[in-house]
Amino acid sequence: ERTGTAEAILCDGKTAGQIAAMLEAAAGRRLLLTRLSAEKRAALPDALDYDPLSRTALSGELRALRDSGIGIVCAGTSDLPVAGEARRTLAFHGLDAPVIADVGVAGLWRLMDKLDRIRGFRVLIAVAGMEGALFSVLAGLVRAPVIAVPTSVGYGVAEGGRAALSTALATCAPGVVTVNIDNGFGAACAAIRMTAAGRGA
Amino acid sequence: ERTGTAEAILCDGKTAGQIAAMLEAAAGRRLLLTRLSAEKRAALPDALDYDPLSRTALSGELRALRDSGIGIVCAGTSDLPVAGEARRTLAFHGLDAPVIADVGVAGLWRLMDKLDRIRGFRVLIAVAGMEGALFSVLAGLVRAPVIAVPTSVGYGVAEGGRAALSTALATCAPGVVTVNIDNGFGAACAAIRMTAAGRGA
Amino acid sequence: ERTGTAEAILCDGKTAGQIAAMLEAAAGRRLLLTRLSAEKRAALPDALDYDPLSRTALSGELRALRDSGIGIVCAGTSDLPVAGEARRTLAFHGLDAPVIADVGVAGLWRLMDKLDRIRGFRVLIAVAGMEGALFSVLAGLVRAPVIAVPTSVGYGVAEGGRAALSTALATCAPGVVTVNIDNGFGAACAAIRMTAAGRGA
Amino acid sequence: ERTGTAEAILCDGKTAGQIAAMLEAAAGRRLLLTRLSAEKRAALPDALDYDPLSRTALSGELRALRDSGIGIVCAGTSDLPVAGEARRTLAFHGLDAPVIADVGVAGLWRLMDKLDRIRGFRVLIAVAGMEGALFSVLAGLVRAPVIAVPTSVGYGVAEGGRAALSTALATCAPGVVTVNIDNGFGAACAAIRMTAAGRGA
Amino acid sequence: ERTGTAEAILCDGKTAGQIAAMLEAAAGRRLLLTRLSAEKRAALPDALDYDPLSRTALSGELRALRDSGIGIVCAGTSDLPVAGEARRTLAFHGLDAPVIADVGVAGLWRLMDKLDRIRGFRVLIAVAGMEGALFSVLAGLVRAPVIAVPTSVGYGVAEGGRAALSTALATCAPGVVTVNIDNGFGAACAAIRMTAAGRGA
Amino acid sequence: ERTGTAEAILCDGKTAGQIAAMLEAAAGRRLLLTRLSAEKRAALPDALDYDPLSRTALSGELRALRDSGIGIVCAGTSDLPVAGEARRTLAFHGLDAPVIADVGVAGLWRLMDKLDRIRGFRVLIAVAGMEGALFSVLAGLVRAPVIAVPTSVGYGVAEGGRAALSTALATCAPGVVTVNIDNGFGAACAAIRMTAAGRGA
Amino acid sequence: ERTGTAEAILCDGKTAGQIAAMLEAAAGRRLLLTRLSAEKRAALPDALDYDPLSRTALSGELRALRDSGIGIVCAGTSDLPVAGEARRTLAFHGLDAPVIADVGVAGLWRLMDKLDRIRGFRVLIAVAGMEGALFSVLAGLVRAPVIAVPTSVGYGVAEGGRAALSTALATCAPGVVTVNIDNGFGAACAAIRMTAAGRGA
Amino acid sequence: ERTGTAEAILCDGKTAGQIAAMLEAAAGRRLLLTRLSAEKRAALPDALDYDPLSRTALSGELRALRDSGIGIVCAGTSDLPVAGEARRTLAFHGLDAPVIADVGVAGLWRLMDKLDRIRGFRVLIAVAGMEGALFSVLAGLVRAPVIAVPTSVGYGVAEGGRAALSTALATCAPGVVTVNIDNGFGAACAAIRMTAAGRGA
Ligand SMILES: Nc1ncnc2c1ncn2[C@@H]1O[C@H](COP(=O)(O)O)[C@@H](O)[C@H]1O
Ligand SMILES: Nc1ncnc2c1ncn2[C@@H]1O[C@H](COP(=O)(O)O)[C@@H](O)[C@H]1O
Ligand SMILES: Nc1ncnc2c1ncn2[C@@H]1O[C@H](COP(=O)(O)O)[C@@H](O)[C@H]1O
Ligand SMILES: Nc1ncnc2c1ncn2[C@@H]1O[C@H](COP(=O)(O)O)[C@@H](O)[C@H]1O
Ligand SMILES: [Mg+2]
Ligand SMILES: [Mg+2]
Ligand SMILES: [Mg+2]
Ligand SMILES: [Mg+2]
Ligand SMILES: [Mg+2]
Ligand SMILES: [Mg+2]
Ligand SMILES: [Mg+2]
Ligand SMILES: [Mg+2]
Repeated sequence: ERTGTAEAILCDGKTAGQIAAMLEAAAGRRLLLTRLSAEKRAALPDALDYDPLSRTALSGELRALRDSGIGIVCAGTSDLPVAGEARRTLAFHGLDAPVIADVGVAGLWRLMDKLDRIRGFRVLIAVAGMEGALFSVLAGLVRAPVIAVPTSVGYGVAEGGRAALSTALATCAPGVVTVNIDNGFGAACAAIRMTAAGRGA
Repeated sequence: ERTGTAEAILCDGKTAGQIAAMLEAAAGRRLLLTRLSAEKRAALPDALDYDPLSRTALSGELRALRDSGIGIVCAGTSDLPVAGEARRTLAFHGLDAPVIADVGVAGLWRLMDKLDRIRGFRVLIAVAGMEGALFSVLAGLVRAPVIAVPTSVGYGVAEGGRAALSTALATCAPGVVTVNIDNGFGAACAAIRMTAAGRGA
Repeated sequence: ERTGTAEAILCDGKTAGQIAAMLEAAAGRRLLLTRLSAEKRAALPDALDYDPLSRTALSGELRALRDSGIGIVCAGTSDLPVAGEARRTLAFHGLDAPVIADVGVAGLWRLMDKLDRIRGFRVLIAVAGMEGALFSVLAGLVRAPVIAVPTSVGYGVAEGGRAALSTALATCAPGVVTVNIDNGFGAACAAIRMTAAGRGA
Repeated sequence: ERTGTAEAILCDGKTAGQIAAMLEAAAGRRLLLTRLSAEKRAALPDALDYDPLSRTALSGELRALRDSGIGIVCAGTSDLPVAGEARRTLAFHGLDAPVIADVGVAGLWRLMDKLDRIRGFRVLIAVAGMEGALFSVLAGLVRAPVIAVPTSVGYGVAEGGRAALSTALATCAPGVVTVNIDNGFGAACAAIRMTAAGRGA
Repeated sequence: ERTGTAEAILCDGKTAGQIAAMLEAAAGRRLLLTRLSAEKRAALPDALDYDPLSRTALSGELRALRDSGIGIVCAGTSDLPVAGEARRTLAFHGLDAPVIADVGVAGLWRLMDKLDRIRGFRVLIAVAGMEGALFSVLAGLVRAPVIAVPTSVGYGVAEGGRAALSTALATCAPGVVTVNIDNGFGAACAAIRMTAAGRGA
Repeated sequence: ERTGTAEAILCDGKTAGQIAAMLEAAAGRRLLLTRLSAEKRAALPDALDYDPLSRTALSGELRALRDSGIGIVCAGTSDLPVAGEARRTLAFHGLDAPVIADVGVAGLWRLMDKLDRIRGFRVLIAVAGMEGALFSVLAGLVRAPVIAVPTSVGYGVAEGGRAALSTALATCAPGVVTVNIDNGFGAACAAIRMTAAGRGA
Repeated sequence: ERTGTAEAILCDGKTAGQIAAMLEAAAGRRLLLTRLSAEKRAALPDALDYDPLSRTALSGELRALRDSGIGIVCAGTSDLPVAGEARRTLAFHGLDAPVIADVGVAGLWRLMDKLDRIRGFRVLIAVAGMEGALFSVLAGLVRAPVIAVPTSVGYGVAEGGRAALSTALATCAPGVVTVNIDNGFGAACAAIRMTAAGRGA
Repeated sequence: ERTGTAEAILCDGKTAGQIAAMLEAAAGRRLLLTRLSAEKRAALPDALDYDPLSRTALSGELRALRDSGIGIVCAGTSDLPVAGEARRTLAFHGLDAPVIADVGVAGLWRLMDKLDRIRGFRVLIAVAGMEGALFSVLAGLVRAPVIAVPTSVGYGVAEGGRAALSTALATCAPGVVTVNIDNGFGAACAAIRMTAAGRGA
């Protein structure tokens, strides 16, 4: 934890056998597992806290959650798995962060209705697919830094998250930064560093 | 004019000599010239109505303008040349269309202030570069069809208009259609067909 | 229905459980479901009007159809699912729109034979994959606005619809506008706005 | 001339000095120079037959032209330089080939008016930019092989010829083959091989 | 058969039901089916001549084959399915064309050993994946037109055939023309037109 | 300044005339101008604080600078213009931020020598072109959030900043966020929000 | 073996039947099989030395291994299959090469701990996915040539290995060369040529 | 010179003033300058050994050249500037390397004529643009490692060197490694490491 955030295992390109060996090598040390499919999870020891929607597992003791000042804003239902990866990464670090869902800009009033609450956070993680217009609109309405997480939700030119990513990068709303497509984990790690940034950490 | 819109000459890949020959061949028939640089214009006959910002020229008699029901909404100052190409194409067809400028979504209140006026149009042409979030927000606020014209204004991933184009296509706001990057001419032609569409034309 | 078209659920990135919850929350309100696979449909309540080819479902009472003035022109048999998504979206709004199929430009006479009928529509939705040359040819023959829907039918450079999309955007036939690849739903919503546009709606 | 077509010098990446040295080394042997700018031509010996529109030069004795059975069909005025490169390459080989211009498919009747003449050729070179729909339409109307030459005429998604190229490749009209963007030289060389193909050469 | 080649059904995006209906509608007329998977073939009438490697089927009477003057040259074993699609398309038209396999340029002597035979053809179809260097080398050794068919054989930058396609287009060997990736059918149709081209057809 | 950062004018797509009009309209209000070329600057009023390397101008009174806790780390000399845009944007907001230059990872010891100083900042802006490996290495060595600014310095696959951008996004070092290529302005705005984030702003 | 390395069969695009035929045709000659899935291997003769992780098989007698001076450095566990393809290709040629794993740059100390050992090799094969920063860092620390093998491990912009590949190519650390994504085979063949290069082979 | 090759300054993104300062700071230490335009060179001190074709300059004493065992093979005249950058980088390190030019594969006999000489080198640098087929052919004929340098010579799909680069990477000829487009400098540095590799350096 030399850099302030804990170690995580990206399970995508690993066999269940390799992951099991890593868990054993950890010898009880706390570990976060991301992108763990239900099939692979079934081949691992029982003592894992597994969440199928976000495909994350927590190994080792679970921490009590304290308020983080971080809010997760989510454009649509299809973006919830990625939002969940961010929420679970924060939980692994003992931080609580609510998910505010279904605030896509095609129905602007839904976002406006929740604006007061959204303005209360010190750091915002915004999760959106398709064209990702949420990133620009949100950053124009709040003072907190906005970490955009483009999701691979979408088809045609939006396939694989490319359209949402280019919106996050090309936005003329100052205050938006971005991470890789579907990278809820990275967004959470960056948010942790940011909340520490103001405290002279 | 078999398809309801008049003939236009795209001057980009043509020499001044070729354009002059086309004007002469037209023998007074009305013509619209697009993407005509100031240098080429200088080599053409004087009797052209040339607008340097939109790089358009009208040849032949100018028509009196009547109200078109078409509005042109423009995100930033840099998008004005493309908005101008649309406005001038409509003018060539005898149609008046106001340009409502500087309504980018990073400052949402600027758009909201003008919303009543914008809702008064039957067809909207929306012109935006960078990430083009304007297209999605606008379509969620009005009932008219929105013709998105992505502009080549932008750098990095927005270079050449690619980010704005993918936003226009990937938008989850129903009612948005798009034309090629910087194609103010095409947007105007489509808008003319649309206003005719409801009249049983 | 603030913007003139009704709400739709894009089922692609959602679990059957999430969709079922949305149907229940709708409490009888009419809903359109798009991109609903046969597998997911099997896990949903029986009272859905499901069409496997277009992968759409209508929930709630079905409306009687009235003539819309909208025609759907389709290049090949493989494009029928996307044409169907447009037709079903219109039907959900109580609008009837015929599908005129198999008019690809490699056999130009097939298109010419049906031209009189095609010229009778006020708005045209054109559905084509591969290289999408139909969009340009059609727009040069009619006065109605042409909404191009590129489809993901194709291989090699046409894979995923990219070639047809670039044809739709790059066409020099004025009057063509486009939506995202395979977006029959969006084309239908835009067509509805267009037919309203002329009526001073 | 081991492969049936003569040697050519692509002048694009070469200095005038390098080209002059090659001409001298040729010692009177006939040479074709392509992509030769007017500036570089000015720095070369006078005894060159230079054509500024196609940017080609013929060095050595000019051949009398005989009928080739090859026709060059050209969508728009802006495509003439590339059509010219093909025509000049054929002329270098002693072959005459007429250019039939301005038959873009947005005005289908212009193509139809010239169809009888076009059907008279044994091999067709089709030159078009923007979306290149001409390739598909033409191949559906004739029995000759169609060599598509996409041109870099266009902007937005058509920039650099990409849209026209993907149309040429993705066309569902059997009988179309393609060469690189703007490669009028290559199209002419292939056409020469094709006319020989039937004679048992 | 207005254009000299017969009708073909691309089965990729069609259901077995749709294909069966087309066969029935053909009422005995001869048909070529391409990209027909073994699964779909199993759901069709027995009286089809099906070849699983090339995934083609011939419906209707089989023609006796006569010599075509067309040769098919194939870089590697993995390219045989595409070469087969070309061979079967020619067979459908009553034309015999041998496949000369395993002549990739990494082992140049294998190509040289067969050069005399290869030089005997009037038209060559060259099928290659990976980087497709075969196209350039071959065209520099023969006088016949070379129709390059890039295949989707390859990984990394060659994935889906992109590297081989760009080689076919960028080759500086005059006399190469290309068709879409994996398009053995299109190559065969073009070859038929070419052999006719010399006969004054 | 509703979002905590001041208004800026992106001068790239604007004429000198348009910029002059904006300055006049501002009527003394403080303004930041970015991407202002020396040519355009020459056509503007004298009372601008212009920096040619970063191509920025400050209009209105200059603020005294206070320590910001933000450090700017720069891989090479060619990245200094972008680093300068960030530094000047911070200065416009009254914040001082040192630039630590020439710490590219090909000479790792140069970075290591300055590591103690770099670890003293609360927020880091990292500016790098070519392959941008600096982003990953840096984030693994510090606890502060790292805002990557890929620059358009580079050629071949790095042209226009694409390689550096994909490194910033694909990094497996948690704690890196990114902005658009060359967007020093956006990085500075985000850094300001981040330093405020920890203070409960 | 005219070029110093032996023949290999890339099994990806081949059926088990075709591979079996090739083995039989080899008649005992030693062969290396790459990209051989477990399913296909099951359909082949028993006398193969098959390694499931690297998906390689050795046919014919196994050679005793001698020291090669080649080291394989591997960023993460997910890169082991590709590292294994390189190791097995070397083993097929009778060369031993150790794999030094888990030295990704996000934890720089892990690389530094093993640096002495790494500096002992005459040629290094470096295997990394995601953003591939390892290539640049490594080349700045050693004197041996570094053959980068980007792997397809990664998601978002790193999908399919594109980000790691562009890092390998764009690196400003002199001494890095690269092969195609996932091409452990090619890296091993090149390494063999390099170790021979110094011996005057 | 910790890594066996000397320091170089890439002048592309630097002003003449910055370069002059670096030369002064070097205080007589030997330096290599690459991508130095003639305009910038004119603004630098006279004591530079400048070569306009390769756009390189050597500062400090020139070394006597000894045989390197490295050969530079070059496809066409337009590739000479990049070949020159490699040759000059080697000269800077005191190594002599001949350039064997004009061996493009479209005229295979030109390559064959020089094969004996080419086989005499221990390391080969191959420089080619357009489709770069030379890389594959060459590697199949020699035992030395082949360092491919794709050049930006080409147009259409070859523009900027993309086609040649993908050939270098996708080649199935084992023994080819590649560097970035136009990177003659990097190829030379790698070649130096390779010749050292066999000597136990
Ligand atoms: N700015 C423009 N963008 C797209 N198409 C245009 C534009 N201006 C003219 N056109 C169309 O391009 C065609 C002109 O092509 P050309 O024959 O080369 O002049 C006309 O039929 C116009 O419809
Ligand atoms: N306009 C052109 N497009 C494509 N290839 C060309 C063109 N002109 C000449 N060539 C070919 O490029 C080769 C010339 O390359 P170089 O040796 O660099 O002059 C010749 O062998 C020609 O066959
Ligand atoms: N260098 C820059 N990069 C990105 N955005 C900028 C830059 N400079 C200014 N902006 C933003 O772009 C907007 C200016 O757009 P405009 O109205 O066209 O001047 C402002 O709201 C700024 O926040
Ligand atoms: N994993 C691999 N990656 C790249 N090339 C390979 C690989 N395995 C074998 N090859 C090469 O690809 C050629 C096999 O092509 P084929 O004739 O289709 O078996 C052989 O000559 C090998 O040099
Ligand atoms: Mg969304
Ligand atoms: Mg904008
Ligand atoms: Mg079609
Ligand atoms: Mg055209
Ligand atoms: Mg091959
Ligand atoms: Mg750098
Ligand atoms: Mg890695
Ligand atoms: Mg070359």
